[in-house]
Amino acid sequence: MNNNIIDVKITDGFWKGYLQTVVDQVIPYQWEALNDRIQDIEPSHAIKNFQIAAGEADGEFYGMVFQDSDVAKWLETVAFSLENVPNPELEQVADEVIDLLGRAQDENGYLNTYYMVKEPNNRWTNVRDNHELYCAGHFIEAAVAYYQVTGKKKFIEIVSKLADHIVQTFGPEECQIKGYPGHQEIELALVKLYDVTGQEEYLKMSKFFIDERGKQPNYFDIEKEARNDEAPFWFNDDHAYHQAHEPVREQEVAVGHSVRAVYMYTAMADIALKTNDQTLIKATKKLWDNVTKKQMYVTGGIGSMAFGEAFSFDYDLPNDLSYTETCASIALVFWAKRMLHLEMDGKYADIMELALYNGTISGMDLDGKKFFYVNPLEVLPRAVETRHEKQHVKPVRQPWFACACCPPNLARLIASIGHYVYSQQDDQIFVHLYLGNESTFEIEGKSVKLTQRTNYPWDGDVNIQVSPVSESQFTLAFRVPGWAKEMCVKINGELTNYVGLVKNGYVYIDRIWQPNDTVELSFPMVIERIKAHPKVRDNVGKVALKRGPIVYCLEEVDNGSNLNSIFLPKTSQLTSSFDEELLNGVVTISGEIERVSEQHWNDILYQSIEEEMTTMTFKAIPYYAWCNRVPGEMLVWINES
Amino acid sequence: MNNNIIDVKITDGFWKGYLQTVVDQVIPYQWEALNDRIQDIEPSHAIKNFQIAAGEADGEFYGMVFQDSDVAKWLETVAFSLENVPNPELEQVADEVIDLLGRAQDENGYLNTYYMVKEPNNRWTNVRDNHELYCAGHFIEAAVAYYQVTGKKKFIEIVSKLADHIVQTFGPEECQIKGYPGHQEIELALVKLYDVTGQEEYLKMSKFFIDERGKQPNYFDIEKEARNDEAPFWFNDDHAYHQAHEPVREQEVAVGHSVRAVYMYTAMADIALKTNDQTLIKATKKLWDNVTKKQMYVTGGIGSMAFGEAFSFDYDLPNDLSYTETCASIALVFWAKRMLHLEMDGKYADIMELALYNGTISGMDLDGKKFFYVNPLEVLPRAVETRHEKQHVKPVRQPWFACACCPPNLARLIASIGHYVYSQQDDQIFVHLYLGNESTFEIEGKSVKLTQRTNYPWDGDVNIQVSPVSESQFTLAFRVPGWAKEMCVKINGELTNYVGLVKNGYVYIDRIWQPNDTVELSFPMVIERIKAHPKVRDNVGKVALKRGPIVYCLEEVDNGSNLNSIFLPKTSQLTSSFDEELLNGVVTISGEIERVSEQHWNDILYQSIEEEMTTMTFKAIPYYAWCNRVPGEMLVWINES
Repeated sequence: MNNNIIDVKITDGFWKGYLQTVVDQVIPYQWEALNDRIQDIEPSHAIKNFQIAAGEADGEFYGMVFQDSDVAKWLETVAFSLENVPNPELEQVADEVIDLLGRAQDENGYLNTYYMVKEPNNRWTNVRDNHELYCAGHFIEAAVAYYQVTGKKKFIEIVSKLADHIVQTFGPEECQIKGYPGHQEIELALVKLYDVTGQEEYLKMSKFFIDERGKQPNYFDIEKEARNDEAPFWFNDDHAYHQAHEPVREQEVAVGHSVRAVYMYTAMADIALKTNDQTLIKATKKLWDNVTKKQMYVTGGIGSMAFGEAFSFDYDLPNDLSYTETCASIALVFWAKRMLHLEMDGKYADIMELALYNGTISGMDLDGKKFFYVNPLEVLPRAVETRHEKQHVKPVRQPWFACACCPPNLARLIASIGHYVYSQQDDQIFVHLYLGNESTFEIEGKSVKLTQRTNYPWDGDVNIQVSPVSESQFTLAFRVPGWAKEMCVKINGELTNYVGLVKNGYVYIDRIWQPNDTVELSFPMVIERIKAHPKVRDNVGKVALKRGPIVYCLEEVDNGSNLNSIFLPKTSQLTSSFDEELLNGVVTISGEIERVSEQHWNDILYQSIEEEMTTMTFKAIPYYAWCNRVPGEMLVWINES
Repeated sequence: MNNNIIDVKITDGFWKGYLQTVVDQVIPYQWEALNDRIQDIEPSHAIKNFQIAAGEADGEFYGMVFQDSDVAKWLETVAFSLENVPNPELEQVADEVIDLLGRAQDENGYLNTYYMVKEPNNRWTNVRDNHELYCAGHFIEAAVAYYQVTGKKKFIEIVSKLADHIVQTFGPEECQIKGYPGHQEIELALVKLYDVTGQEEYLKMSKFFIDERGKQPNYFDIEKEARNDEAPFWFNDDHAYHQAHEPVREQEVAVGHSVRAVYMYTAMADIALKTNDQTLIKATKKLWDNVTKKQMYVTGGIGSMAFGEAFSFDYDLPNDLSYTETCASIALVFWAKRMLHLEMDGKYADIMELALYNGTISGMDLDGKKFFYVNPLEVLPRAVETRHEKQHVKPVRQPWFACACCPPNLARLIASIGHYVYSQQDDQIFVHLYLGNESTFEIEGKSVKLTQRTNYPWDGDVNIQVSPVSESQFTLAFRVPGWAKEMCVKINGELTNYVGLVKNGYVYIDRIWQPNDTVELSFPMVIERIKAHPKVRDNVGKVALKRGPIVYCLEEVDNGSNLNSIFLPKTSQLTSSFDEELLNGVVTISGEIERVSEQHWNDILYQSIEEEMTTMTFKAIPYYAWCNRVPGEMLVWINES
């Protein structure tokens, strides 16, 4: 795998819109929030914490132990945004924040405002709960992005010093801590830092964290004893919460906190690739299969339990109780990209695309002003308002959170969407995602420009202009989406017989490309009736609608209340149409449904009755766009008759 | 309504079996438990608490604030058991316990070991939480039963002294507390005490508690302030938990803790009847309609939320998250009986029967050794073991609980089953339940003996021998079960045209009865496919099987795992047969079902697929008897195709 930095500019209607929302709305809003200039929300105090740590302000630390990560994620989002939308003013603000971080940093490289201000003598005494390594990871990720986009080294120097301090502190030597973070994140960040600095010790550090995890005696127990902490750990007193119940290479089933898990799996794939570690590759693939074949919602949501924001068990995927945290789907995108680099197989890109178009962006409203942590597949507002066990599910997106984990995470994902479109392996360029962009690659020293034009995800026609500076042989491998039932490929207007060119979900076109060659791909989008494996007990007898990468849902505003009484007949003709006015422009799906009539029930609760059905027309909208109009019921899995 | 004490001796196979289990197993076991002579369960300390309060033992109070009620419920169960199975030895033990209670009682009548031993200065300072009135209610109920069965007055004297103390303490006068209990129970008990003593002040006291409840300013707030208690009340800081959010006459929807609610509704019906209070009658009927038409499970279970063990809202009846406490269904039986006395309508007896044969007795295993608090309608053991929001649901019945609310409550219900069979209004005798018994009534000074013989609930043929001491005119009103699609009535072997004799679910037979007249009733039991109102979103497209009063379920041991993948075709022929060997003898239901085949799925989680179905035979067993063999999945509501 080359580490070529591919220059991708988003020109796509769909993603450009989201990017612009992040640039216009999310970044400035979060900046105000970080500086406590927004009324009616809990203060963030995040910038102030750094000022206090730097000795430039008085006061106490305030916020969550991982408050620092909000600043880091903001900086990372800014970095990615500058890649697409240069903004010298914003860049200067970021530079100033980075300078502040530098001034706050301890001479020995340590940087964490919670411990520096509040518990200076307790650093590294509770890596299980207190997120020092997690925050460090986010600093590193932000610094790498900022460096890659701006070329400026200041931030990289700060985080290298921090990473060096960590490398000194953790490790196998007598005097070193044999621990690892309670919330994984630094592992994948250190690999990124290794990529841009070439410093082997960062990769080694990351691998140490992975290798050490789950060994007996468990470090979290050792550390707990040293703290004289006698309370049982709240999650069943079980290290499965942070995937430290057994060595990672022995883990076959995804358990515990889903974001922690998938951040770790991402790092495992990274390290497996860099070190060609076969046991790690095997473990990673096994976990991938478990997550995507047994524990994933049809939207690419993961984590079916509120308790521990966690995976539960195979096929346990209740639609109305799910946690399906926005961050977990984001993590799935990260992981999928790494799996692709381990093994160029379209199945990974399929999941990446699924999460991108559904379970991630559902976390934000179309205006970029309100957010979901939890992305359920079925909501009855009264139930989530009344029933305690559904309290984690919100019937409407919420304004920015004081402890903002998902919103800035989604912002950085959207801002970095360009990084998920292509991979390059030597003279092969893989096209994973179809979205309008202009990108430049370097193949064997020659610059190649690719220009994608598409109306994706509303249709599957993609036009790609291939422009090497001069005639040049290389391979373009275009992903054949898993949902595509058929396809056609034209090169310079001529139909190409692709049979024989397809391997593991990519069609490999190896030729001597001329400037302004054109590839036209067509993946007709048809409406699919998706069924869930019969072991998913909540979905037996139900169907979800999907078209291309987009999963659909019913909303009360279109279909009336009591969506659960709707049946979609197997014979119902379904049609799709683009509605420019609706939800920033979406394809909707319509057709005839039947609804159990309430009229003949006479207010009786149970009876032996031949039910009567009323026929009506339904309208389904893309799941990601739900709750952008009148709030109400929502349903993904529809009864089938 | 006469208060004639009807003498009923149970001779029925079904209920005699349960009664014998209570006599042989539950009463002796609980006695050992109350005396802390059982290994491996938390101590009860309940008898010891009385000994300490009486100054006959040293030590501290131990247990819940309502620990006394365990002794009371045991005494009540003993009383009812003696009615059917005389046992002088047991009666002597009970007499000794009653003597102990008398010795423990304060001179002023107060009796509550928690406060007497632990907080002597804080009596009546927290009637919201601390169950003094609740325990008093159970003492009273036990004493009334003991008096009615044995004719002994000691216990009645003790509770009358206690009731007199309460009458002095609570009331509208300046010096009196204008409060009412946080857990209703004493209201219905005081009516019983009024019935046997004729003392009007007990009825007035009960009415005061009902009238005062929910008035503004709320007494629980006043009391809380007086205690300097500043914590918000844990249940949404909401008096709806104990139905004190508004005056009871204004309450139209059942809310809050379901046992408290229904104990109160029971008392409301009692008081409405005794005082002919029309607004109370109206409120009671409204609440009855709400509970039975909007908030009741098909098993007669109520309380769909674990949080607060409470009602949630109309049609919110999830099968796998329900609380459906055994005690709540028991309370529903109490209430139904009172509603019958307000208005002789079969609809009340239908619900009484439903709860008796399903949601109450499901709380105990067939051996009387293990108990459910929670009676779910769907259980996947792994889900309740893993998912926090289902922790209240147990996959198997549990041994006796330290804080034993449901087991002794069920024991006293079973022991008193004879009290639910008949009602007498002057010269009318109403037959609500069909079960083998020999009973004696007094009609206009003449003794009348009724002898029921039936194989109910396994078939609907009932033979009733009517034996007045001499020729005598009176009315027998036989309930026509709501589930009966047809019926026939024979008198002395001759078919009777009952058309015109049926009113509100009872067939009224008014004639001059001769000694040894025989009435034969036949209500053919057919297998019913029950549907739930389409607003019960969890049951749309599903069907429950019912035969006579018995609701059926599928168990894994009979039908394999993943019961949710089963579909019962509308066209499937269902047959019933009695299996003598199974579960103490039950009628099972069988037929052909279809099951989604997993074979073709190839380990894929979601796909567009035409599913294949496998046909197999299923066996359904009575719901109450589930989990008496190999533990596993259980399901009441089956997908229909």
